[in-house]
Amino acid sequence: MPPAFLKAEYDDRLARLRAAMQARGLDALVIGDPANINWLTGYDAWSFYTPQMMFVDLEDGPFWMGREMDAGAAKFTSYLSAAQIVAYPESLVQRADTHPSVFLADWIRQHGFATAHIGYESDVYYLSPRALSALQAGLPDATWHDADLLVNWVRLVKSDAEITMLQAAAKIAELAMQTAFDGARPGVRQCDLMADIVAAQIRGTEEFGGDMTAIHPLILAGEAAATAHPMWTDAVLEDGQTIAFELGGCRKRYNAGLARTLHLGSPPQKLQDTAKAVEEGMQAVMDSLYAGAICGDVHAAWQRVLDRYGLEKKSRIGYSIGVAYAPDWGEHTLSFRPHETVAVPENAVVHIILGMWMDGWGMELSETLHVRQHDCRRLADFPQHVHLVP
Amino acid sequence: MPPAFLKAEYDDRLARLRAAMQARGLDALVIGDPANINWLTGYDAWSFYTPQMMFVDLEDGPFWMGREMDAGAAKFTSYLSAAQIVAYPESLVQRADTHPSVFLADWIRQHGFATAHIGYESDVYYLSPRALSALQAGLPDATWHDADLLVNWVRLVKSDAEITMLQAAAKIAELAMQTAFDGARPGVRQCDLMADIVAAQIRGTEEFGGDMTAIHPLILAGEAAATAHPMWTDAVLEDGQTIAFELGGCRKRYNAGLARTLHLGSPPQKLQDTAKAVEEGMQAVMDSLYAGAICGDVHAAWQRVLDRYGLEKKSRIGYSIGVAYAPDWGEHTLSFRPHETVAVPENAVVHIILGMWMDGWGMELSETLHVRQHDCRRLADFPQHVHLVP
Repeated sequence: MPPAFLKAEYDDRLARLRAAMQARGLDALVIGDPANINWLTGYDAWSFYTPQMMFVDLEDGPFWMGREMDAGAAKFTSYLSAAQIVAYPESLVQRADTHPSVFLADWIRQHGFATAHIGYESDVYYLSPRALSALQAGLPDATWHDADLLVNWVRLVKSDAEITMLQAAAKIAELAMQTAFDGARPGVRQCDLMADIVAAQIRGTEEFGGDMTAIHPLILAGEAAATAHPMWTDAVLEDGQTIAFELGGCRKRYNAGLARTLHLGSPPQKLQDTAKAVEEGMQAVMDSLYAGAICGDVHAAWQRVLDRYGLEKKSRIGYSIGVAYAPDWGEHTLSFRPHETVAVPENAVVHIILGMWMDGWGMELSETLHVRQHDCRRLADFPQHVHLVP
Repeated sequence: MPPAFLKAEYDDRLARLRAAMQARGLDALVIGDPANINWLTGYDAWSFYTPQMMFVDLEDGPFWMGREMDAGAAKFTSYLSAAQIVAYPESLVQRADTHPSVFLADWIRQHGFATAHIGYESDVYYLSPRALSALQAGLPDATWHDADLLVNWVRLVKSDAEITMLQAAAKIAELAMQTAFDGARPGVRQCDLMADIVAAQIRGTEEFGGDMTAIHPLILAGEAAATAHPMWTDAVLEDGQTIAFELGGCRKRYNAGLARTLHLGSPPQKLQDTAKAVEEGMQAVMDSLYAGAICGDVHAAWQRVLDRYGLEKKSRIGYSIGVAYAPDWGEHTLSFRPHETVAVPENAVVHIILGMWMDGWGMELSETLHVRQHDCRRLADFPQHVHLVP
């Protein structure tokens, strides 16, 4: 299990992060998001369900901090030295009277950061209020700074190696969607179809295997298609259903999203009309997406198409995507919606997802797009039109 | 997508939770754990990657609070009325300048809780420091109480319907493990084997389909088996490898865990010795586990066996298990380890996992056990011995 990238790549990421930390006046940073930990060091294990963090200083680290039984994974999956792996004792797991943060705060204090300026991620899934407050209580003389998304903004711009990884993920996404299209027919249970789809995601290609996508694979069939994130059931697919799939592929935690729609039987006019608008909207988005484009302007290109068709979509149409663990593959930086003034940088990768959750039915079309100097490029090559199963 | 249980079952759960809230002097409770939300109402969607909570009062609720595009799922998957579904606008998602909690705090204040005693979950994955502090800032005259695990302790005791659900999950776990045993042989890529295993988990049986387990399915092969939670790779299985699987089954978010070990080729003596101790230890645990048993005493029964064999295991050997979303299927209540004085109640369900992560190799054996008045019962029926693939 060597790290996903060469050491020089991680060295470069660390240098870029430290520059961002210094620009914010930080001596150190506490990272709670396992995707950010993976991005910075390669560390990869399903270990973040007990407290785990990364402590980044300006000189000696970064330091992985986690449970003793997972310390071996830090050795196997990253270039971290033994001195950079800080394990708290198993006896601290899930206790009412103490917390791993108490131990970790002691370590940080004893290593010269008692009065440091320390940033922390305030809005991530795996650094809880209790974990943070115990950490802060153990370092009462430090100055704490909300540095949420600091790492995420640095990792917005992808390296060539990351683009290659995302291309592999997109290849897997194609295979998963083809499996969906091949298997969907009336009478098939949702769970049986999803079993084949997820198997295709994990099997990958002969050249490279796949991983679980960070977002749970989604099938939107029947009335559940009116909502965005339903779980599959063991109901059978039925003639007359419009079925949207939000799938994707994942390679070494790098996610590419892919959503498509099919219809069993004769397509209703409202589906055909909406699909036409959505395909045209996707083209308008792609035509307006290149390095330097403003997120709000990209959304406006979509909105103009929607307006012409008299359709409405309240939610944002996309976000940056990349390395991620459950439950989300979005990077929580770029959002394509009105009034967003951020410019999209070259070598960002974004997932544009046009989900139309209508009254009693729904459809989706998405692309994962590599933003280049003068244009953008689809990472997956898969027909956009609604697939009809007669 | 009807809720997993009858309305009377959810009514009973709510009554038990409200009694626990009143015993703690709480007027209301903010739940962040999606498993607790599911347990209380049936709500089921992959929607917790944006802020989502449940607000439980003593009279009118509970109230689901989440993103507008997911409100439909509350209608489809629970018995909640329209008045109990509180959606925040899409425009509040992932903003630097505001947070859904600001909107939700307004709602709570306007509904009579401005000066209430409000409990909250402090150490869950999906209620971040920022989400909590924005909520508290919007309700400055409320009195806030750390009520972490309050719901979890109430749901420790399972109903007959929940036991039936967990039996279904355990049946799926058997199928998954059989798939692992049937497919593991030298030359097979880990990802190809895991594709088949996960497909078996999702396909379930002809009577009922399966869901994704909350813990990522784990294969511990080769040197990675020395650590507890490695991710699969596309390396091929090799002759001479000891391979542990921590799998399980999931039905409607109810998880049953199942870990077993196999060896490719001729088994080394150290594996045979360790396996003998572990099987004997599992029997000792099962013999000491019944309603009223003390968690520390159950661990002591295991420790006596280990001591006799001169083996060591630093981590706890089990925990309660049940309804869960990624990344953990444990309920964070019972822990089987030294000095734990809690008595195991009748109709608890626990996952006893004897993971021996040794120097350069490892093995695991687990059982999901239904604790009854005078004994405990294995939910899955699968041979415990190390499976040998010649």
